[in-house]
Amino acid sequence: MAQVAAIVGGGVIGGGWAARFLLNGWDVRVFDPDPEAERKIGEVLANARRSLPGLSDVPLPSEGRLSLHSDLSEAVRGASWIQESVPERLDIKHKVFASIQAACDAGAVIGSSTSGFKPSELQEGAADPGQIMVAHPFNPVYLLPLIELVTTPANEAARIAQAKAVIQGVGMYPLHIRKEIDAHVADRFLEAVWREALWLVKDGIATTEEIDNAIRYGFGIRWAQMGLFETYRVAGGEAGMKHFMAQFGPALKWPWTRLMDVPDFTDELVDLIAGQSDEQSGARSIRELERIRDNNLVSMMRALKAQDWGAGALLNAHDSGLRQEAGLSGTVDTIGDLSQPLLTLDRAVPLDWSDYNGHMTESRYLDAFAQSTDRFMEIIGCDADYIASGGSYFTAETHIRHLDEALAGDRIAVRTQLILGQGKKLHLFHRMYRGDTLIATGEHFLLHVDLKTRRPTPPSDKIEAAMARIAKAQSALGYPEGAGAAIRAPQ
Amino acid sequence: MAQVAAIVGGGVIGGGWAARFLLNGWDVRVFDPDPEAERKIGEVLANARRSLPGLSDVPLPSEGRLSLHSDLSEAVRGASWIQESVPERLDIKHKVFASIQAACDAGAVIGSSTSGFKPSELQEGAADPGQIMVAHPFNPVYLLPLIELVTTPANEAARIAQAKAVIQGVGMYPLHIRKEIDAHVADRFLEAVWREALWLVKDGIATTEEIDNAIRYGFGIRWAQMGLFETYRVAGGEAGMKHFMAQFGPALKWPWTRLMDVPDFTDELVDLIAGQSDEQSGARSIRELERIRDNNLVSMMRALKAQDWGAGALLNAHDSGLRQEAGLSGTVDTIGDLSQPLLTLDRAVPLDWSDYNGHMTESRYLDAFAQSTDRFMEIIGCDADYIASGGSYFTAETHIRHLDEALAGDRIAVRTQLILGQGKKLHLFHRMYRGDTLIATGEHFLLHVDLKTRRPTPPSDKIEAAMARIAKAQSALGYPEGAGAAIRAPQ
Repeated sequence: MAQVAAIVGGGVIGGGWAARFLLNGWDVRVFDPDPEAERKIGEVLANARRSLPGLSDVPLPSEGRLSLHSDLSEAVRGASWIQESVPERLDIKHKVFASIQAACDAGAVIGSSTSGFKPSELQEGAADPGQIMVAHPFNPVYLLPLIELVTTPANEAARIAQAKAVIQGVGMYPLHIRKEIDAHVADRFLEAVWREALWLVKDGIATTEEIDNAIRYGFGIRWAQMGLFETYRVAGGEAGMKHFMAQFGPALKWPWTRLMDVPDFTDELVDLIAGQSDEQSGARSIRELERIRDNNLVSMMRALKAQDWGAGALLNAHDSGLRQEAGLSGTVDTIGDLSQPLLTLDRAVPLDWSDYNGHMTESRYLDAFAQSTDRFMEIIGCDADYIASGGSYFTAETHIRHLDEALAGDRIAVRTQLILGQGKKLHLFHRMYRGDTLIATGEHFLLHVDLKTRRPTPPSDKIEAAMARIAKAQSALGYPEGAGAAIRAPQ
Repeated sequence: MAQVAAIVGGGVIGGGWAARFLLNGWDVRVFDPDPEAERKIGEVLANARRSLPGLSDVPLPSEGRLSLHSDLSEAVRGASWIQESVPERLDIKHKVFASIQAACDAGAVIGSSTSGFKPSELQEGAADPGQIMVAHPFNPVYLLPLIELVTTPANEAARIAQAKAVIQGVGMYPLHIRKEIDAHVADRFLEAVWREALWLVKDGIATTEEIDNAIRYGFGIRWAQMGLFETYRVAGGEAGMKHFMAQFGPALKWPWTRLMDVPDFTDELVDLIAGQSDEQSGARSIRELERIRDNNLVSMMRALKAQDWGAGALLNAHDSGLRQEAGLSGTVDTIGDLSQPLLTLDRAVPLDWSDYNGHMTESRYLDAFAQSTDRFMEIIGCDADYIASGGSYFTAETHIRHLDEALAGDRIAVRTQLILGQGKKLHLFHRMYRGDTLIATGEHFLLHVDLKTRRPTPPSDKIEAAMARIAKAQSALGYPEGAGAAIRAPQ
């Protein structure tokens, strides 16, 4: 039987919790007096269903059952996890906890989504303080893994272990904070940045957009993979964490933020931090950490390129400017000699294309060939505008032969021969080179389709004419060696 | 002729600037009295060469020439960009600027990498203050695009435009800050977080590792793609930015950070911020922004999965726990019935697998089939330990047929038939299903190799025996329909 979670208070946070539990196989009961609760939770759930299951490389458990309840006791009875996400007012929270504890199982955990209250404050006057702890999530709750789990001595070890197991079970990370403090840990940073940002806007130093860009084009990308201390450890280089701290120690007394109430920069504090940093990151050399950092940054920035967003959008714009010089822009009318296979790709193999065999992984050959096909489509006039108008090409069949390897950093180029371009049919032969060495071939059969009906249909006359021009110009090339062949295991 | 940049002060930051310019086709002259300068810059350059060219989808310009100079005048003469990255002491910087300006071209820009000094401070006493401005980069300079360009009225508009063009030319983003302030913008946030973090460590609330995890498993991932304000705008949901601010307004007076010197939370400030936020993000609805955010988060978290790092490592660990239940773990000895094609993949199509045609893109079919091949290898005993011992399989040939489409979110499964597994040869036939519908087939011919010699070699006896067992069990299946076929355009 599925485990049961009760969500007290819907909205963006409660809805996110509901989605986490549901999509991980729990039955979820929601209590929220808001008449719009069902619609609001439905919208969060729709977002979660489109994003969370595919984040995983294996299927999640079968989705649990969702029910909405107008009676709090009914919602919490029999639940093993009860999550409170009501407004940030201590009096409201105390009332809600009292109602929950009047009905819930004694063995249940009651987690609070509070951003700011300490668990001891939440526990005040409770029938069983040991049930209540802070389980503070981050929006979107259905994607971000962090939960700040803040406890007091009233929470017994077994209950804390139970809470950690549930949080991990729904794919999250319990960061156990043993010594409570207002706003826990992460929100203290967010609040500090928020306050500083309010000053900057108020004082006319920067707009909200400029501040966001200052974050997402710089340290934001770093912080997605290493935090504050590991990032600085790496930046400190060979000289280490102590050197880094010594260098920026004096800045603590300078007006580099409005936050002037700084701790004394004593040897003791430096040793404490350097020691913790050694324990955290000392197993790897600075060089190793630099490479890990760079692999992460390149991978994430390339992920953002594919979404054409943030730093990725900047990179795409920069690439556009380089395309012409690289001979990777223009159409059949402007690119010049059509009689030889056309240059359709020229690039360095990125760090995120490598696999456990230490070379460019097979799916990235098809990624590169697909980019070549896209470029060929652009050459014949099937560009973004044409596709937006409702026509495109779908690949029906692909045959790749690997003749040699490519490593990260290798410069590779693809030259493309048109085997057939007639009516709805497009038959291409890509040759991939590393320098002068042929390292792979890709033979592709595509069909022109109507994007509405998803059925084959002839392309525009302009595309048909462009294909005919290339076919005629390349007619002397002959049928490519390796094309039209099946896989036959050598005997 | 290549443009010339002079780098005054090497180290991590100067070296990063040198790499940026060099890899974007500039000649670079370095002046640094450190006897280790050449080695240190060489190490930064090696990191840059392995990561930056492949970040781009087109070739960067041919690399410029690097030279080291013991004479500052020689280094800066004829340079159109001079970047100062010497220690953060104003007296040192003033001396360096005087020496630079005694020799450099009048038309050159002199950028300073200073984290904290205001440009007016740098310009004090300079022969030509208008040449000097802050161009503050972020480490690693060769990857992160942000440059805070801080100017004073002494910098003429034409010089500022020239500076912006150079920064964009080397693939970076000039964030022009018109009203100078100590530590500019981004470092004010970093300093606020740093100070708060020092308190948390000192007070024993969290260790450096816990703080880093609080950042990189939560808001750090968000900030890699949207900054502070756009993130909160989205979190505020339908009620909008004003509602969000009203909700957290009172918190400004609470001890949520040590930074207690807050601006007055007036209607005027709320209107200013809400207005700027509308201008920044108002063209898109909250629902659109949520989906963009989720696409970005999923893409970046999946990029981190491939690196097995940070939030990605958490996700991989969670997947491992689900594998057994999904029938995606174990070997030939434990998985049971071998007589039918083996389940080698079962997953939802992730958001980052879609393309401009609105469906799962072709290279991701091969990505999925490659995951199936990896799983088959694991079943026959070619697992991570075996690969670490020096043997593996390389794909020689691939034939994919697309029979239907898959959309993001669709659950797909792959079942794998062994066509031949004998000696060094491995011939597989993957069938990909969406529900009961066959949507693609992948035929793959692989060779077992010695990872040292990169040459074909027979696998271990254990693998050979496992393949024989599966071949025997599957012998009644017959040769798969669609295998052994070449691409032949329908006539």
